[in-house]
Amino acid sequence: MRIPVSLAIAATVAVMAGPASAQFAKPEDAAKYRQGVMFVMSQHVGRLGAMTSGRVPYDARVATENAEIVADMAKLAWAGFGPGYDKVTPSRAKAEIWSEQAKFKEHGEKLIADSTKLVAAAKTNNLDNLKAAFGATAGNCKTCHDAYRRD
Amino acid sequence: MRIPVSLAIAATVAVMAGPASAQFAKPEDAAKYRQGVMFVMSQHVGRLGAMTSGRVPYDARVATENAEIVADMAKLAWAGFGPGYDKVTPSRAKAEIWSEQAKFKEHGEKLIADSTKLVAAAKTNNLDNLKAAFGATAGNCKTCHDAYRRD
Repeated sequence: MRIPVSLAIAATVAVMAGPASAQFAKPEDAAKYRQGVMFVMSQHVGRLGAMTSGRVPYDARVATENAEIVADMAKLAWAGFGPGYDKVTPSRAKAEIWSEQAKFKEHGEKLIADSTKLVAAAKTNNLDNLKAAFGATAGNCKTCHDAYRRD
Repeated sequence: MRIPVSLAIAATVAVMAGPASAQFAKPEDAAKYRQGVMFVMSQHVGRLGAMTSGRVPYDARVATENAEIVADMAKLAWAGFGPGYDKVTPSRAKAEIWSEQAKFKEHGEKLIADSTKLVAAAKTNNLDNLKAAFGATAGNCKTCHDAYRRD
């Protein structure tokens, strides 16, 4: 039996998409969603960075609050990068996100894992622990943006 | 002693702002933050609405996931509406948000309380409980938007 190309593609897309990315009514919503999540995350990463670099005083409670929001956001962003959501402008998302979905997802999963450790580190009430875990978490931002985000 | 008006205003703003809204580097960031949070929240409210109205099948686990995100977002949005963040465009935020900060905050606190109950209701694995709690939560959106959001 020959399967029409369009149907074969549709089937592949459906498998890769999963339930999460099927949830947006239109691609524009997916882009707006991921951009919103990323911006919120960036604000809280910035506040942790100010604390770990000594620009603002260390406060374990505030660090934990910020780390928890980073970890929450890390779980949300990826649904907005699902198949079919690549043709939206304005967007700094590179085409490789969609041509290398498995590799891209690995980045997402690493961020989720590292930001979960960040929350645990923030709760230890020890600035050195926070610094180490923050460095690991923030490293994900740079690695992934270098590969998948336009300048 | 006469206090210059500009200093008196600055002092009042600082008291009302609190630590949360002091965290944005510029008003544009506050607006982008609140708009991002509101959009993410709207997506998950929409998914719960689809479930409670029967447009998609009821699934307690998915309902709980969505409710938890709504409750998380309900806690975040308000910092972006702090004093000094009113002169940003494009924004649908009405000036009354800033001239009635105490009243506006009450709306925010009610949403936080109702969305916390929504999570609990979602976890009961009972569609009627979910429907009731969702109605209460979504009622906050309409009431507050009618009062504080431009058409």
